Amino acid sequence: MSVTAKRIVLASRPNGPVSKDNFRLESHDLGAPVAGEVLIKVTAMSLDPYMRGRMDDAKSYAAPVEVDGVMEGGAVGEVLESNAEGFAAGDKVFGMAGWCDHAIMRAKDLRKLPDGIPETTALGVLGMPGFTGWYGLTKIGQPKAGETLVVAAATGPVGSMVGQFAKHKGLTVIGIAGGEKKCAHAVEKFGFDACLDHRSFADARDARAKIGDACPNGIDIYFENVAGPVLEGVLPNMNVFGRIPICGMIAYYDAGGGAEVFDLPKFWRSMLVNRMHAQGFIIADHWDQYPAFLKEAGPLVANGTIKYTEDVAEGLENAPDAFMSMLKGGNFGKQIVKVA
Amino acid sequence: MSVTAKRIVLASRPNGPVSKDNFRLESHDLGAPVAGEVLIKVTAMSLDPYMRGRMDDAKSYAAPVEVDGVMEGGAVGEVLESNAEGFAAGDKVFGMAGWCDHAIMRAKDLRKLPDGIPETTALGVLGMPGFTGWYGLTKIGQPKAGETLVVAAATGPVGSMVGQFAKHKGLTVIGIAGGEKKCAHAVEKFGFDACLDHRSFADARDARAKIGDACPNGIDIYFENVAGPVLEGVLPNMNVFGRIPICGMIAYYDAGGGAEVFDLPKFWRSMLVNRMHAQGFIIADHWDQYPAFLKEAGPLVANGTIKYTEDVAEGLENAPDAFMSMLKGGNFGKQIVKVA
Repeated sequence: MSVTAKRIVLASRPNGPVSKDNFRLESHDLGAPVAGEVLIKVTAMSLDPYMRGRMDDAKSYAAPVEVDGVMEGGAVGEVLESNAEGFAAGDKVFGMAGWCDHAIMRAKDLRKLPDGIPETTALGVLGMPGFTGWYGLTKIGQPKAGETLVVAAATGPVGSMVGQFAKHKGLTVIGIAGGEKKCAHAVEKFGFDACLDHRSFADARDARAKIGDACPNGIDIYFENVAGPVLEGVLPNMNVFGRIPICGMIAYYDAGGGAEVFDLPKFWRSMLVNRMHAQGFIIADHWDQYPAFLKEAGPLVANGTIKYTEDVAEGLENAPDAFMSMLKGGNFGKQIVKVA
Repeated sequence: MSVTAKRIVLASRPNGPVSKDNFRLESHDLGAPVAGEVLIKVTAMSLDPYMRGRMDDAKSYAAPVEVDGVMEGGAVGEVLESNAEGFAAGDKVFGMAGWCDHAIMRAKDLRKLPDGIPETTALGVLGMPGFTGWYGLTKIGQPKAGETLVVAAATGPVGSMVGQFAKHKGLTVIGIAGGEKKCAHAVEKFGFDACLDHRSFADARDARAKIGDACPNGIDIYFENVAGPVLEGVLPNMNVFGRIPICGMIAYYDAGGGAEVFDLPKFWRSMLVNRMHAQGFIIADHWDQYPAFLKEAGPLVANGTIKYTEDVAEGLENAPDAFMSMLKGGNFGKQIVKVA
């Protein structure tokens, strides 16, 4: 079997915010899988904020996508043809296929999906984003019942896992999200104790006051995935011995976002005076913990204790628009692109 | 017995750098120790950078010294009269007597000194400063043989313990100190692999270059006790999974020291990209670990593996000058005031 595949490549690196010109849709002949390889048809692919970092040439934790190279990303699909032991046509699989509709992949880079649970959960609540939330919360955040946690992007796949898992552990959970609809969703669907609309924050000082009002006992864990005014609003409300797992900082991804209130000396003093613990982490360093995550979170997802919300865009060609919208908070839940 | 005691009180709070006007020498009658109390004659007292923080009224980890209150600090001395079980005239003790020549203290706040080792070690290498260095290095720094550590104030009682203990653990140790004489001392007496003179740093960028040259394999642990341009010179040289125990930041104690290169967004990005771990600590939270420290470090001091240097000022009345000089790096080793 030989198929003509479509894929989206990085046409140019962004200079500030991502634009449509940075992407190009291409077609190419895939050939056939050689020994150890599998041909897959992608059914759905994932869009995640980390992909923004891969578009830059800056020093980061992973190599950038090359210009004219296919955009990186996780996908789920179905095996069309297998030239590898252990895989057969019809198998449902997950792999880092990139932004494309078909791919030939090495069997060792694929994971078979479990039955009985929607396949797109492998991209979100039980995939990299859910694992990221669970790892940062449990391993760095060290949550204790009775404490208060704040997480932004509360309806996204990382934030909703962090908040729901923290609730499961007995914490008070305050979310932050963009718009009343997302805030209501965080409380009603995900069970957050409250959720603040960051669009109502006039500036970092206003964020500080509103976050402080919502957290009368202070904040013990701030799961960082946005930075910007939210970070600056959280910092003065942190309790002694507070923990900050640093997972992402979407407000700082497009250049130009400076701090309003905190300079390095002021931040550094607060780290010392409050004996705080801040730690950056990249989930790619911790895949050895993934089975432990699945064992703990899988049953909670299956029995409905941990819920998830997906935002599905239709068609590979619409991935760039969905991605740019997501970077501005336009998605509602885990952003997925249905490819076939 | 009733004695007239001398003590130094906080006459006024500093407005920027500490000045002589902020202190006042007083005399007062002590009375006699009641049940559970002990009268001690102070033989030597400690001067430490943390005392600068106690002079401000700002929110910090410990209550400030009251205006007209005695300056806080540790001291060693001899029991003159005991009204408490377990103490007798002639006993050598350590306690937080403050800046004074005699004090009445509760027996439960005193610790007897071991025989066979100079009593002033209880103020430095085997007291709070040495314990601080050991705790931050071992519990937060998590040193591993073959790694590279940087510590400033390298000839001071904290920095020299950090560096020597790290050498004992098999690390490469680069010190930073003020002036050629201190740098030579760090290498020759304390066994540091190299020591850089921070007075030779033109600015943070120059610090970055010089620190980078001295650490060809990057920096795995930066023990923070100075901040300022040293911190900004260290940050770009940190390795992935680097650790920063935050113990102090003398460059930021007197108001006005801003960052030259790093703003909060830039710092925050480096925390994430390098998966760094920064953690503030205050040794007062960890006295439960002090016996473990004495057990591990005591024999190393007694057998000369860990060395120490003391800078001794003579006379209680000279404590303010010695303190102000120390805050500017004028001391050479652990600053002590010989009182009697």
